[in-house]
Amino acid sequence: MTPNATPTVLVTGFEPFDNDPLNPSWEVARALEGWDCGGATVRAVQLPCVFGLAAERLDEALARWRPRLVVGLGLAGGRTEWQPERVAINCDDARIPDNAGRQPVDTAVVPGGPAAYFSTLPIKAIVQALRAAGLPASVSNTAGTFVCNHVFYALMLRLAGLPGVRGGFVHVPCLPEHAARHPGAPSMALATQVEALRVTLRTALAFENDIVAGGGQLH
Amino acid sequence: MTPNATPTVLVTGFEPFDNDPLNPSWEVARALEGWDCGGATVRAVQLPCVFGLAAERLDEALARWRPRLVVGLGLAGGRTEWQPERVAINCDDARIPDNAGRQPVDTAVVPGGPAAYFSTLPIKAIVQALRAAGLPASVSNTAGTFVCNHVFYALMLRLAGLPGVRGGFVHVPCLPEHAARHPGAPSMALATQVEALRVTLRTALAFENDIVAGGGQLH
Amino acid sequence: MTPNATPTVLVTGFEPFDNDPLNPSWEVARALEGWDCGGATVRAVQLPCVFGLAAERLDEALARWRPRLVVGLGLAGGRTEWQPERVAINCDDARIPDNAGRQPVDTAVVPGGPAAYFSTLPIKAIVQALRAAGLPASVSNTAGTFVCNHVFYALMLRLAGLPGVRGGFVHVPCLPEHAARHPGAPSMALATQVEALRVTLRTALAFENDIVAGGGQLH
Amino acid sequence: MTPNATPTVLVTGFEPFDNDPLNPSWEVARALEGWDCGGATVRAVQLPCVFGLAAERLDEALARWRPRLVVGLGLAGGRTEWQPERVAINCDDARIPDNAGRQPVDTAVVPGGPAAYFSTLPIKAIVQALRAAGLPASVSNTAGTFVCNHVFYALMLRLAGLPGVRGGFVHVPCLPEHAARHPGAPSMALATQVEALRVTLRTALAFENDIVAGGGQLH
Repeated sequence: MTPNATPTVLVTGFEPFDNDPLNPSWEVARALEGWDCGGATVRAVQLPCVFGLAAERLDEALARWRPRLVVGLGLAGGRTEWQPERVAINCDDARIPDNAGRQPVDTAVVPGGPAAYFSTLPIKAIVQALRAAGLPASVSNTAGTFVCNHVFYALMLRLAGLPGVRGGFVHVPCLPEHAARHPGAPSMALATQVEALRVTLRTALAFENDIVAGGGQLH
Repeated sequence: MTPNATPTVLVTGFEPFDNDPLNPSWEVARALEGWDCGGATVRAVQLPCVFGLAAERLDEALARWRPRLVVGLGLAGGRTEWQPERVAINCDDARIPDNAGRQPVDTAVVPGGPAAYFSTLPIKAIVQALRAAGLPASVSNTAGTFVCNHVFYALMLRLAGLPGVRGGFVHVPCLPEHAARHPGAPSMALATQVEALRVTLRTALAFENDIVAGGGQLH
Repeated sequence: MTPNATPTVLVTGFEPFDNDPLNPSWEVARALEGWDCGGATVRAVQLPCVFGLAAERLDEALARWRPRLVVGLGLAGGRTEWQPERVAINCDDARIPDNAGRQPVDTAVVPGGPAAYFSTLPIKAIVQALRAAGLPASVSNTAGTFVCNHVFYALMLRLAGLPGVRGGFVHVPCLPEHAARHPGAPSMALATQVEALRVTLRTALAFENDIVAGGGQLH
Repeated sequence: MTPNATPTVLVTGFEPFDNDPLNPSWEVARALEGWDCGGATVRAVQLPCVFGLAAERLDEALARWRPRLVVGLGLAGGRTEWQPERVAINCDDARIPDNAGRQPVDTAVVPGGPAAYFSTLPIKAIVQALRAAGLPASVSNTAGTFVCNHVFYALMLRLAGLPGVRGGFVHVPCLPEHAARHPGAPSMALATQVEALRVTLRTALAFENDIVAGGGQLH
């Protein structure tokens, strides 16, 4: 089998969970399925919100598409901005059951794996580009301990064995229709989020190394 | 001069303040200038962010357009939703100077006026209609003590002398481009806000009396 | 019956509600029962968390103690500071049932009463004195629409007919033991709250008129 | 030199930073200097709020006291609870300069070190014990990227080479006097925090292995 003639960018989103009818991470991802990003083609893949199974599906997508760049997306209800994550930790600690009823507490994503992996996306350059485009963004230093972090960790472990392929994870806000059912929740419109994904992918392809720019937190 | 052949709805927004290049309240208002809302024509008027002068300009607009409905809009940085205000209080207490450098502290909007006026918009019906349309909304019980509350109070005082004309005030979130310069701030896209204004006006015209629906706060 | 030989300060707190075992507003009030505040004696009275009945009990306490100063206290879960309230509004709008199962929606506290009453406590002086004493405090512009606002409005209506008697309302944070059952909730220790009440009462007696000091909100 | 006859527990706090006159992490630590915790003696050591130098001072304290347990404390302005941290990451990214004017951006705490270390404190047991004692607490999944995380990472790296010695880090809220100068900030009284430290140390000594209990975050 020959390598892909066209380079591919893989974007993953999740199926709905916690009784919500839709998940913005998937709505945003599928909106750019087939999009040409500077010569690379975007492939959107939906992952189940299930520990273990989500990582298996990710592996299948990596094998099928052999992407040069991978961006995982996940919903972070309560956040106001598009937030590239800095680090994935080797810990599953589920506050609620996943879609298969699994609720691991303080177990490793991969037993014996490193405690953490850093994103290999240029997260500072992405935040800077998003803000310059008028899109609210900041770096996040925790991806939590649910299925998002699980997939993020599994992804970085795979990429550690695939030199030249970079990737990471972005947490995204609720959509307005979601916030309309959860009074007080912040949200971001689908069109705004899709534009944020475009800027994220363009910047990730353009910056092989990150820029040096502030973005840390005191605590 | 004959009365307006066509009924008019007056929507006011503010000029920018506090060093921001634009004010979503005006961007949203002017987007619907001339819009036909069930037989009524929307007139958008920009008010200065100046104590006293803003109320004068409001008076001029009321005299010119003789509206049957008036909706004032103002920016509330930090809020996540489109929020109809319940009550205007007779108090100016400026945390920062207005655009003319005025900074009243604990003075009356109108000396000798009532302590407060309630909105005569159907605020519960509006919130219900917004949520049904997938737009984040809730009732607010304080419009603050800056120029927004000042204009809201001045409006309700005028409308108290104009039987049959209803009105009120809505606080709106930042736009995304605004939030992009203030890390962490929640925002709502212009298109979302314009749709929220359409739903607000339609509902306000349709419901002469408000519905009985929850929306209070414990504190 | 002769007037009280000793001037009295009345402090009210509420019984527990919403399934909590205790209410900090009452714990704080009763801690100062009998305290001599510059020649005035503090009387602490517990009010039921019930629309209507709370105001009746307040009336009884006013008749019994003929205080020269009245400070109502109420719990505001989620707030971080000791917050003197600026204004009571003539509106009951209960998000949850009170302790008698009553849940009024958009009804008047007193039909035909003014839309609002302002506190006659020196709220800016109180906040300044609290901060100078190292106690977190700020002015609040909404007392909500539940039993706290109900009692606050009823109190100010009574005081409007009692020249020389001043009063108002303060919302207080959770106690730590309360926050320990509600992860994420801010709290303030009982000792800190009792000291805040002492400072509040001393300042209220010392300042017949409020100082001119910032404390407003943009929205 | 002979080993310590009495087992030692080392607690570190920081000197003030960011223009604050005092730092609760040190006020709490020094309050328990010399305290006997179930047969072990607490030694409180103040660390400078300086990248690099803080880790050197920590090393000196480890060498001097040869503790069996180490708990680092640091201020987290804006947090409402006593929060044991789960993980230290190998990243310095300073939003503001430290007390020596150093402001590293995206550099390693220890070049070539593991991406992260997990706390070896029983963080779930500590949170459970704190809540049972009426003290607000929860697990935190990010210690930030400033000097707190720097010291936490340096500590865990050292402990990785000292079998049988356990340790970790706890972020603590502002004191009330601090919050009084930063309107809106949550706080926790010194007495409450000192009691929280007592419970933390007792629990850490009692539980060599953590309990299995919820405490994760969705994101």
